[in-house]
Amino acid sequence: MQSLLSSAEDTIIAPATAPGVGAIALIRVSGSQAFSITNKIFKGKNLEKQLTHTIHFGLIKEGEINVDEVLVSVFRGPKSFTKEDVVEISCHGSQYIVSKILKLLVLNGARLAKPGEFTKRAFINGQFDLAQAEAVADLINSDSEASHQAAINQMRGGFSNEIKILREKLIHFASMIELELDFGEEDVEFADRNDLKQLILNILAAINPLIDSFELGNVIKNGVPTVIAGKPNAGKSTLLNTLLNEEKAIVSEIAGTTRDFIEDEISIKGYNFRFIDTAGLRETTDALEAIGVRRSYEKMNQASLILYLFDSAETNITEVLQEKNKLENLGKPFLLVANKIDKANAAQKEMWKNAGAISISAALKSNIDALKDKIVELVQLDKVKLGHTVITNARHFESLSKTREALETVLYSLDRNTTGDFLAMDIRSALHHLGEITGEITSDDLLANIFSKFCIGK
Amino acid sequence: MQSLLSSAEDTIIAPATAPGVGAIALIRVSGSQAFSITNKIFKGKNLEKQLTHTIHFGLIKEGEINVDEVLVSVFRGPKSFTKEDVVEISCHGSQYIVSKILKLLVLNGARLAKPGEFTKRAFINGQFDLAQAEAVADLINSDSEASHQAAINQMRGGFSNEIKILREKLIHFASMIELELDFGEEDVEFADRNDLKQLILNILAAINPLIDSFELGNVIKNGVPTVIAGKPNAGKSTLLNTLLNEEKAIVSEIAGTTRDFIEDEISIKGYNFRFIDTAGLRETTDALEAIGVRRSYEKMNQASLILYLFDSAETNITEVLQEKNKLENLGKPFLLVANKIDKANAAQKEMWKNAGAISISAALKSNIDALKDKIVELVQLDKVKLGHTVITNARHFESLSKTREALETVLYSLDRNTTGDFLAMDIRSALHHLGEITGEITSDDLLANIFSKFCIGK
Repeated sequence: MQSLLSSAEDTIIAPATAPGVGAIALIRVSGSQAFSITNKIFKGKNLEKQLTHTIHFGLIKEGEINVDEVLVSVFRGPKSFTKEDVVEISCHGSQYIVSKILKLLVLNGARLAKPGEFTKRAFINGQFDLAQAEAVADLINSDSEASHQAAINQMRGGFSNEIKILREKLIHFASMIELELDFGEEDVEFADRNDLKQLILNILAAINPLIDSFELGNVIKNGVPTVIAGKPNAGKSTLLNTLLNEEKAIVSEIAGTTRDFIEDEISIKGYNFRFIDTAGLRETTDALEAIGVRRSYEKMNQASLILYLFDSAETNITEVLQEKNKLENLGKPFLLVANKIDKANAAQKEMWKNAGAISISAALKSNIDALKDKIVELVQLDKVKLGHTVITNARHFESLSKTREALETVLYSLDRNTTGDFLAMDIRSALHHLGEITGEITSDDLLANIFSKFCIGK
Repeated sequence: MQSLLSSAEDTIIAPATAPGVGAIALIRVSGSQAFSITNKIFKGKNLEKQLTHTIHFGLIKEGEINVDEVLVSVFRGPKSFTKEDVVEISCHGSQYIVSKILKLLVLNGARLAKPGEFTKRAFINGQFDLAQAEAVADLINSDSEASHQAAINQMRGGFSNEIKILREKLIHFASMIELELDFGEEDVEFADRNDLKQLILNILAAINPLIDSFELGNVIKNGVPTVIAGKPNAGKSTLLNTLLNEEKAIVSEIAGTTRDFIEDEISIKGYNFRFIDTAGLRETTDALEAIGVRRSYEKMNQASLILYLFDSAETNITEVLQEKNKLENLGKPFLLVANKIDKANAAQKEMWKNAGAISISAALKSNIDALKDKIVELVQLDKVKLGHTVITNARHFESLSKTREALETVLYSLDRNTTGDFLAMDIRSALHHLGEITGEITSDDLLANIFSKFCIGK
């Protein structure tokens, strides 16, 4: 990994807080010259002589001109995020001041960091493995309870440790088999084939649930694609607004934390749902009949969940049962929702209940909480809360899948007493893919690709 | 000021960094329970036992659930911004996490801060005077070198100290005169009238330049309102773009510090210029003739600077001299700009020079720097850089003007040997207005009004 470290001699800087006006902005400095470069523009104590994890008041000066009164935090490597010497400058939250301080630092020998460069250094210096580094970015981008929980679990170690332990054991077998190969024709067997088989079964038992969890992990990270279908006037927009406004109310309880709402993304019980625009569907007069139209079919097929909404007072049972039949044929989780239940008579209420529909009034906000519970239950999202480890990262999914493929080949070969060199090749392949996840196996390209997705300052 | 302190028993919290996604976000906690409340959600060292200005790693937990890995900074009052116990929580820069931590702090007894409430507490607890507190907000909002320089000078003390010393002396005379009044009919004179007169002249000599500087301070804070006039095809838009793009290039040198540009606000040599939309002017075929139109007159009158642009190859001297005459009658600083100078012949070049025009090519970006120098010189903006103290705050301007009015009345009375009770009344009025500036004299309403303009977290 020598080449990766080559640039680590530079001292890098970046704004670490979001752009825009705030009370405070932070600038991060990391590298062997973090203290000496900051000293050149900081009038206060000599930072090189301060203890780690201490804070110092002073002035940033450009010659005789005062740029800002700041607090400077000192972190001495390896007791810092990057394990290098780190300075954090806490200045007034004006973009003008932030630009000015960055410029002064550059003039004194620092370099602007690339996106993710601080985290990359932390990874290279052994602060955490690659899967944990990736979780840092996921954590910053998390916008729901579930995506946040998946990210922080992964950042705190998650499946990394288990994978590392299994990989160590597999390395042991790999070296035994390589040793056999060195002995050539002598037909010795250092690696017990039964033990190897058992280990591979154990690894598969560990990684199969992770691979299976990716579909769930993906919807947790990106939101569950959901379609609300139904005839015009069934109350589709009203339901969307009811779900959306309730979330807005919860969030605006916490003043000062305004959040941009994506028009059709709604958090339900801590999970994000992306409502797919079914404008095409709504235009037709006979809603699910529109499934006949290819474009609408595509919408339905993108969905992981379909809510079929109908007017409980104005719809006849035959129509609903026909739609239910069509939805069953689609093979996706769906829910029949009897809306405007306040306008239905007792017989109708009983009828919709028997048809398996959930009864609500979107306008009166009645039974909405039960609807939410049903939705979450239907998509089996609660798995993540029950402590299951969930893969949210496509790269991990791919590496795990390739690991499985290689291990299954090993099993196949073992059953057929294939020679050691074939076994060794497939085990090496499995080791490679397992190592990619946590970063024992890596390349400049892979790292560049991963860290370029980070924000500046991280 | 007892009533102002009543709410200071609360422990207040707020996000201190700009909203949006960043590597790091800061949450500020201030008040007597800052340590004990944070301790309840922070798994790490006991913050109550830590030294001031130290940083501690740990976990924010909601019950058994990990919310985030954070760094917590401890500031023990009075060695903090508010002079109260202060905790700063540095978490990952996700709005979800910030909301979550704020919510946990509220559940454990903290209260969300109102805008400016941290700075208000700092003022009430004697960290700085009112004029300095106001400068904190100006500093955060500063977006040019000049507005930044004016704000930081004021925050660092600025004219506050001088005003305080003069006010102390005036208080001395006021009490002498009040003492005379106590002696009633005895016709004693404790306050030497000549000394008093000299003091008042000294105070006027100090505050008059401040009052005069407000017009300059106002344009520094809000930008110099500028009109580019001229016939169609004189190159007005090209000049605007040339000035704007140059600034954009300078700012984008510092990666990661994207700044929103107001379409028609341009920074020239560190000063902001607001270009007033003269769309109305441009529509007419004969540009300055359009001054005849009332609406265009208004545009010109809003301006502090007018640039008259003309095509140096296609315009005759009589026309330019006529326009110059009209501009002189307007009584505003103006500049004749001979554009497209590359297309003019030698005789024309000489002619425009003699007419007092500056020759440029907006398209070729030639002589733009000289144009900028001329502009800054014309509006006398460089005063602020020469160390002159400049008033940028309308409230200070008003209080200083009222102080001057009261002091001039005292002088008038002194010349006419008016009785002590009249002198005392006017001196008290001057003291009141001087005290308003630095906050010795204040009211809940005034403070509420000032601090409500701050951002959350400051």
